[in-house]
Amino acid sequence: MNHYMQACYVGQGMLSAAVAGSIFTSPPPQSILTGIRTIAKGNQGGCLVAVANYTGDRLNFGLAMERAKQEGIHLDSVTVGEDCAMASQDKTAGRRGLAGAILLFKIAGALAEEGRSLEEITQCAKDVASSMGTIGLALGPCSVPGTGPLFHIQEDEIELGLGVHGEAGVKRMKILTAKETVKLMIDHMINPANSTHLKLKSGDKVACMINNLGGLSVLEMNIVANEAITYLEEKEVLVDRAYCGSYITSLEMPGVSITLLHLTDTIKRCLDAPTNAPAWLTPYLPAGQTDRKTSTPIDPLYQPKQEEIESSAAVSPDEASHIYSILQNVCEQLVASEGHLNGLDSESGDGDCGSTIARGAQNIKKELLQKDSKGWPFNHPQGLSLAIGRIAENCMGGCSGGLYSLFFTSAAQAFQEEVSSQTFAKAMYQGIKAIQRYGGAEPGDRTMLDALHAAYTTFSSHLAQLSPPKDAFAAAVQAAEKGAEATTWMKAKAGRASYVSADLLTKPDPGATAVAIWLRAVLEKL
Amino acid sequence: MNHYMQACYVGQGMLSAAVAGSIFTSPPPQSILTGIRTIAKGNQGGCLVAVANYTGDRLNFGLAMERAKQEGIHLDSVTVGEDCAMASQDKTAGRRGLAGAILLFKIAGALAEEGRSLEEITQCAKDVASSMGTIGLALGPCSVPGTGPLFHIQEDEIELGLGVHGEAGVKRMKILTAKETVKLMIDHMINPANSTHLKLKSGDKVACMINNLGGLSVLEMNIVANEAITYLEEKEVLVDRAYCGSYITSLEMPGVSITLLHLTDTIKRCLDAPTNAPAWLTPYLPAGQTDRKTSTPIDPLYQPKQEEIESSAAVSPDEASHIYSILQNVCEQLVASEGHLNGLDSESGDGDCGSTIARGAQNIKKELLQKDSKGWPFNHPQGLSLAIGRIAENCMGGCSGGLYSLFFTSAAQAFQEEVSSQTFAKAMYQGIKAIQRYGGAEPGDRTMLDALHAAYTTFSSHLAQLSPPKDAFAAAVQAAEKGAEATTWMKAKAGRASYVSADLLTKPDPGATAVAIWLRAVLEKL
Repeated sequence: MNHYMQACYVGQGMLSAAVAGSIFTSPPPQSILTGIRTIAKGNQGGCLVAVANYTGDRLNFGLAMERAKQEGIHLDSVTVGEDCAMASQDKTAGRRGLAGAILLFKIAGALAEEGRSLEEITQCAKDVASSMGTIGLALGPCSVPGTGPLFHIQEDEIELGLGVHGEAGVKRMKILTAKETVKLMIDHMINPANSTHLKLKSGDKVACMINNLGGLSVLEMNIVANEAITYLEEKEVLVDRAYCGSYITSLEMPGVSITLLHLTDTIKRCLDAPTNAPAWLTPYLPAGQTDRKTSTPIDPLYQPKQEEIESSAAVSPDEASHIYSILQNVCEQLVASEGHLNGLDSESGDGDCGSTIARGAQNIKKELLQKDSKGWPFNHPQGLSLAIGRIAENCMGGCSGGLYSLFFTSAAQAFQEEVSSQTFAKAMYQGIKAIQRYGGAEPGDRTMLDALHAAYTTFSSHLAQLSPPKDAFAAAVQAAEKGAEATTWMKAKAGRASYVSADLLTKPDPGATAVAIWLRAVLEKL
Repeated sequence: MNHYMQACYVGQGMLSAAVAGSIFTSPPPQSILTGIRTIAKGNQGGCLVAVANYTGDRLNFGLAMERAKQEGIHLDSVTVGEDCAMASQDKTAGRRGLAGAILLFKIAGALAEEGRSLEEITQCAKDVASSMGTIGLALGPCSVPGTGPLFHIQEDEIELGLGVHGEAGVKRMKILTAKETVKLMIDHMINPANSTHLKLKSGDKVACMINNLGGLSVLEMNIVANEAITYLEEKEVLVDRAYCGSYITSLEMPGVSITLLHLTDTIKRCLDAPTNAPAWLTPYLPAGQTDRKTSTPIDPLYQPKQEEIESSAAVSPDEASHIYSILQNVCEQLVASEGHLNGLDSESGDGDCGSTIARGAQNIKKELLQKDSKGWPFNHPQGLSLAIGRIAENCMGGCSGGLYSLFFTSAAQAFQEEVSSQTFAKAMYQGIKAIQRYGGAEPGDRTMLDALHAAYTTFSSHLAQLSPPKDAFAAAVQAAEKGAEATTWMKAKAGRASYVSADLLTKPDPGATAVAIWLRAVLEKL
């Protein structure tokens, strides 16, 4: 084969050699003859020469084969010309060899690996060549390196039926959606009115190759593959193997070709056989796998399971009421601080920290504080902590939402067995650890941790000295406020503020300030 | 992993699941949790979660993992952040996870397939994560579908150190050659002055992954791969595995990343293990293969071997002289017909048919007709026919060159055992068959065959009727001239003329006319 990409199909189970000319040019016969001689030397079974149906290739490969025969080399050849673009068939220029050639290489290579005779392989390769079709489509031209584009297509136009060397197509039209484009291509390919069409009917089993002509993104390729498979399945054609990728490109041409090959058991076995040729790609649907359904969408909203929560430690109805009023005050204070926190954030971030936190508080009010104050989840602090984590995740957004959700979700574990000042300290510890682990910041980095961590260490050390819990918490709140204030002179090492020059940061970190605000709000109602 | 392409790495021997968010966006924790639950259900060994080092990913995957742990799921995680772009290391935003993640998936997946424990796999994955580096470079921006480009780069600029989601790089500069660009990238990656550099020294064994960020052509990718391997080998680094292709793209960003991973025996074994994940590409250098040398260039000029030719049938010195004078006349007549044939060709082709044929004739004069008229190759018609075929191939060019070369090369076989009128007819027959087989045209298609075929059938039928050879040949020449004339009214079905509307063709085919001219020139000297 003459395309430079064919070299990537040399490997065990595919080609023994590829002969490339200059870009888009047939190689000289002497190069081809050298390739044939090399294969013949290492292979007593003979040599199958696959030629793409272009006049230059046919003549140059033909000449090389005639000379090889005169040297006594046992060889045969197969011509690949599966292009379905042309409505009326020119006999010589004829049907171009396109991406289907790669499928033929794979099948012939696998048969050779099985030890089949040259005669058998040639016959099967000819059968393959005559039972496939390809149709190309481009959104733009290709350019041979160092020259300009080979042709021009308007930005809102597409061209149907191009070759891989920039040869003209059969139809130019206004751009269509992916679904319409795929339908156009396949309809053209199988239309009996076109003399070069591929016969295809309901119940047929095919391999489908979606080939990137070079300039499409992986995302676009997968959209085309999905549309092609869907459309074929609508026609009750069984797509038993699907290939998608850059199998044979036309340099960087933004375009795609679709190849369909009728499958037999032999062809399937050969397509599935192993090869180490670098450009042969694993099929999208591996052998034996038939389920190509997309999994059903997941409800993105997390909801802790009530039965699990109810098995965690409970508090009395009075304590539940007390927790209710604490949360109420926290939310009110946070909503009231929206403007202040936004102001702090406008210096170091994008000025929405207050709004994000207020949004969380408002959602807590809406979802939790309209409930019976004594009932669930206030009687199960683990459940409450998980519920707050869920609301932070679902309603706050941004990194603050993620961090608060991590904090409350991880903290919740502490309330599994018991609810006490000790478990409250443990909850803070676990929440802080989660923020550190996943957020990557440490105290001193100018983040919410500077308030949270100060509060935790003060609270736990006061508890360790057997201070009354309320006094311990009051000291913790003061430490948090001091920690928040101290961020004013800290260099930001994490979060968005780390991208801002230290000289421009003259106010405390809004995240740390928010922590001090809600801790004080808790204290006010203890 | 959160990149949409990760879905293509789900398969036996790689990932069990991939969780994708919107394009370039971290997926919601609930989606991640669902993925983890599904894996845990089917896998008693537990679940390794690989997270790319982006804040949103760390938080959302972290949240999902915390919840999964609370559900009693056995899991561990590894964070991939092997980006070597940043000179000073920001602690949180930190090093981004890039194409190296794919190598890590492959290795962890292979270990899982081997039945290793979660602890072992996690440890090895962490070792892999810390023994690789990646550096990206872009020639242009990426665009999220439906929006404009995410950033702007001048046409003569490149940017070093970008992320896969369009994050800014570390340096923008004027465009360089591929060799300079690769040197810049690798030098930056291994520069000890950069805190995120990869340690690399002479004697190290690495796997090298050249990853297409989406918009480079296969040709460009291979140029980069060649430069990278060459540069690493110059540094005496052994590139033991080389990967090149679209492993993880940044939509259609025209750019490339280079990843280097230090190899151990375990890592190599795991990279080489089979997988059916569709996006994992076969390495350029398969396991066990070490030769990456390009084969030495082939002398494109064909020269028949003299000893073989001398074993073919010979003619007397007088007959050799006679053949010499025939060839002389043929060449003179063809040179003299240049203008006439070009004129015929300007109607149906590109007006150079006469020049192509005259060029062949002049080269025959130069190479053969300055020799001793009695000597080689005129005393061995097989050799002479092969020599003319060689000159047609090497000197004429175009399809005419190929067709004449095929004609004379195939015809030569007829003179192996004997030289006679019969073998002359046989030679014509074989030459015509070769033109038909590889050129694809038939008599009646408005080509040189319309003269050649008519001459052959007339000549052989006269011989069959025992006409004197010269009379038979005279009849053949008349038939050729009639055949050439008849092309005037034929519809072109092959060759370049087939693209021209039949109404515009009012003169005989130049190829057929040329045949009639040289046949008459032969007759004149018989």
